[in-house]
Amino acid sequence: MKMILKIQTSDRKGLIAEITRVIFDFNLNILTNDEFVDTENNIFFMRSEMLGECDINMLKGEIIKLLCKDAKVEIFEAKRRKIVILCTKENHCLGDLLIRYDSGELDADILAVISNYDSLEPLCQKFDLPFICIPSEDLSRETHEKKVLEKLRKFSCDYIVLAKYMRILSPKFVGEFEGKIINIHHSFLPAFIGANPYKQAYERGVKIIGATAHFVNNALDEGPIIYQDITKVNHAMRWRDMQKSGRDVEKIVLAKALNLALEEKIFIYNNKTIVF
Amino acid sequence: MKMILKIQTSDRKGLIAEITRVIFDFNLNILTNDEFVDTENNIFFMRSEMLGECDINMLKGEIIKLLCKDAKVEIFEAKRRKIVILCTKENHCLGDLLIRYDSGELDADILAVISNYDSLEPLCQKFDLPFICIPSEDLSRETHEKKVLEKLRKFSCDYIVLAKYMRILSPKFVGEFEGKIINIHHSFLPAFIGANPYKQAYERGVKIIGATAHFVNNALDEGPIIYQDITKVNHAMRWRDMQKSGRDVEKIVLAKALNLALEEKIFIYNNKTIVF
Amino acid sequence: MKMILKIQTSDRKGLIAEITRVIFDFNLNILTNDEFVDTENNIFFMRSEMLGECDINMLKGEIIKLLCKDAKVEIFEAKRRKIVILCTKENHCLGDLLIRYDSGELDADILAVISNYDSLEPLCQKFDLPFICIPSEDLSRETHEKKVLEKLRKFSCDYIVLAKYMRILSPKFVGEFEGKIINIHHSFLPAFIGANPYKQAYERGVKIIGATAHFVNNALDEGPIIYQDITKVNHAMRWRDMQKSGRDVEKIVLAKALNLALEEKIFIYNNKTIVF
Amino acid sequence: MKMILKIQTSDRKGLIAEITRVIFDFNLNILTNDEFVDTENNIFFMRSEMLGECDINMLKGEIIKLLCKDAKVEIFEAKRRKIVILCTKENHCLGDLLIRYDSGELDADILAVISNYDSLEPLCQKFDLPFICIPSEDLSRETHEKKVLEKLRKFSCDYIVLAKYMRILSPKFVGEFEGKIINIHHSFLPAFIGANPYKQAYERGVKIIGATAHFVNNALDEGPIIYQDITKVNHAMRWRDMQKSGRDVEKIVLAKALNLALEEKIFIYNNKTIVF
Repeated sequence: MKMILKIQTSDRKGLIAEITRVIFDFNLNILTNDEFVDTENNIFFMRSEMLGECDINMLKGEIIKLLCKDAKVEIFEAKRRKIVILCTKENHCLGDLLIRYDSGELDADILAVISNYDSLEPLCQKFDLPFICIPSEDLSRETHEKKVLEKLRKFSCDYIVLAKYMRILSPKFVGEFEGKIINIHHSFLPAFIGANPYKQAYERGVKIIGATAHFVNNALDEGPIIYQDITKVNHAMRWRDMQKSGRDVEKIVLAKALNLALEEKIFIYNNKTIVF
Repeated sequence: MKMILKIQTSDRKGLIAEITRVIFDFNLNILTNDEFVDTENNIFFMRSEMLGECDINMLKGEIIKLLCKDAKVEIFEAKRRKIVILCTKENHCLGDLLIRYDSGELDADILAVISNYDSLEPLCQKFDLPFICIPSEDLSRETHEKKVLEKLRKFSCDYIVLAKYMRILSPKFVGEFEGKIINIHHSFLPAFIGANPYKQAYERGVKIIGATAHFVNNALDEGPIIYQDITKVNHAMRWRDMQKSGRDVEKIVLAKALNLALEEKIFIYNNKTIVF
Repeated sequence: MKMILKIQTSDRKGLIAEITRVIFDFNLNILTNDEFVDTENNIFFMRSEMLGECDINMLKGEIIKLLCKDAKVEIFEAKRRKIVILCTKENHCLGDLLIRYDSGELDADILAVISNYDSLEPLCQKFDLPFICIPSEDLSRETHEKKVLEKLRKFSCDYIVLAKYMRILSPKFVGEFEGKIINIHHSFLPAFIGANPYKQAYERGVKIIGATAHFVNNALDEGPIIYQDITKVNHAMRWRDMQKSGRDVEKIVLAKALNLALEEKIFIYNNKTIVF
Repeated sequence: MKMILKIQTSDRKGLIAEITRVIFDFNLNILTNDEFVDTENNIFFMRSEMLGECDINMLKGEIIKLLCKDAKVEIFEAKRRKIVILCTKENHCLGDLLIRYDSGELDADILAVISNYDSLEPLCQKFDLPFICIPSEDLSRETHEKKVLEKLRKFSCDYIVLAKYMRILSPKFVGEFEGKIINIHHSFLPAFIGANPYKQAYERGVKIIGATAHFVNNALDEGPIIYQDITKVNHAMRWRDMQKSGRDVEKIVLAKALNLALEEKIFIYNNKTIVF
């Protein structure tokens, strides 16, 4: 059995020695081990991949004994994750995930795709994925989101992927899935927050555009950043050209961020991410 | 004689044919020719490098005849430019330019280096460059800037390079050298305008930092962007580490932008640049 | 009617003036105009996008009159291109093109997908594309290729896209579609020519891997390069990890190169490309 | 006292626990800790930065007791390193290091600069650095290298930096400073090994050029790679333009690799590097 251990705790001398001692006592083999100390806040982060057989709860209990009260300890079997994808009309991020899913490269089960439009239903049907259309027209934001939430709750998913879902989520929604919602924003945050970043980028005359994958929190486009990348643009490109070029960055950035989440390589602390 | 022609004018059918006809009639050989039409605003931009002998004023006169009244036409001999560098305390951008100057790679004469501190005087002395220290302590912004302007006016320079000059210029100053002042801003504009972008970047938890070379206008860090580049950062880097890593980007971005200016490859229009 | 003009000819004084004069005489509006002179070989390249109505053959005739005998002149209506895709087993490049095709972003008709395996048939069926499986098992290279050629000839396609087609083409094959076959090679050419570049890259311990899109000629992986890009790797990545990361680069590089070809922005000269 | 521990040994269960236990027993605080297991060869690499006071030899002795016979263990005080720079005629890599040296950014003492030409003597004099010219004209390779070795041996330096030193070193030379010589090669290795990579790149028509910093071993340009980076080029660039653009990459790549070496973050194994 392959297990993943994630610890976030106040730092002190001897921590690694004591934790790895416990792991050894449980006769587990450490495959990879990453640590980081946020010296500014004195927080210790550790992620280990371990091989062997053990009672996970007992192991967790022994480790928790070593740590202070505010410590967060997660130990779980490394297994295929479950995701739900939310999207609107654009097909490039969803399509990219579907192609990865089709080849088995994406290490996750896609439980469903939910959209406020039906444009992407045919694409999902090609891949035999449940597509749930919840139109937002004529609905208040609250009512629409409530309907989405009802559907989402039926799936017990590990991550919700906003693959160009062009609606703002309420604090209630975000709170229910804290640290579980990954969004792709089509700009190099914190530049061009909000609507139509490519138009903003064109008007500002930038020479590089980018995309940002981040966890969603209550402030628009201000959640913890997971991954970013960029591509060069020039004066000859209108905003539609920037958008076209940017889509390639968006889909790759989203996929990379999602992979990091699926491998459980990300810690969130202080609205930032530690990515091992 | 190698000449450079720069035209900015309203677009209309037949322009290229007519302009290149005139060039041909003057028996000049076109080495390179770049055109761009801003179709949104119907503006035609053209830059040619031409070889031959001719009366530049006569050539200019013939070309102007073809164009509408608001046309801007520049024709000049391609020759080594003159620059003045303004800096404060950091040596990496200035130093990078000095090393390029020393090898002859920088195609410009450095007339002087002006600073509000004397920290970089020894570096300039090594390269036998006039260093003018104009301390800003105990002076109002106006008074200090006036002193700088007095010095600057003595040099007839083509470009003023702000190589990490950490002071804001007044509209008066900027107006006097419109389109002639190149600044390096230590962030990926429009992200992190203003003071200490690396600290801002660290606090926001971005995964990429950058630098932006731009012409200076009256709004802080909002002038026409010439060139940008980026480098990746991660959670283990404190803002000082980001700053260190960012310095490498800053100096290369500034040098590339300056080279484009020295080769007269940049047009400014609508607070953006067209870069051939 | 939008037309594209491509000229490759010996350079001489006055060429641009004379060519653009003819275009003007035909009452065409030049939308974009790019020129490049290979001064080493004295070859002039020009590409124009023109708007208007005219007899293309007459226009071509007038332009040819201006040029030397070895000149190549192409003028054609800008219209949606036709392509055939060849692939083997990997789905990422094909899948990426299909998603672009599905959204209408890919400005081409996919006439058919041909493969030496049937693995990708289900994927093509999803998108209602003709899939032709021509197994290579138990066939000599010549016999197999002959069968592929027979199929290909039935389609009159503008470009053949090798989307990870893992077979070497004979000179005969290549000769029949000169300058029309675009391949994606999974390395940063000329590094790691031949089989399993990721394994080679892993064994050499490089810190960056890449992908190269190129036209196919008779020498393995040595045709004119259209586009290249890279991604960083590190010591913790085994060659399978590099392969996984490299696939993202491959598909984007192939798509970018194909777009350039579809827009007819590429000239081939001296085993290199001029890309406008 | 800040210390650095570097361990390379056969992997086995419990290693991290036992090693970090010893560190804890010596009452040292672990500031950073990096581990990597080369699972292919079952080799464990570990690097720790530790704070505290202890008898380094005793600590080393205790750790060695835990490890197999072929283990390599290094523990040393983190302190400013000493380097000697070898160069030929080009000033950009040397100059870049000197500017970093001048500001204190380079965490090393430059003991001397040795060159086979005197071109860079004035530059070194500006920074008050000992410059040793050992002309190679009229000397056999052996004789010249012997003279260089004699000079080098007088300095007890930690690293030898080949900042565009355009001569091939003999196995004898390399053997004497194994893992201590850092070279910058002006191509993206393994592409374009040998002389004038930019000319080779131009002739091949690549769209990206690069630079590679590597430790020197006995095979030309085939030592363990430390760091690489690239920049885009196009058809309009002659090889001199590529060279000019490439110089910016070279100097940054060399400086980054040197910094990694100075911080002792690199392990060499199997002709590759593990870089923490």
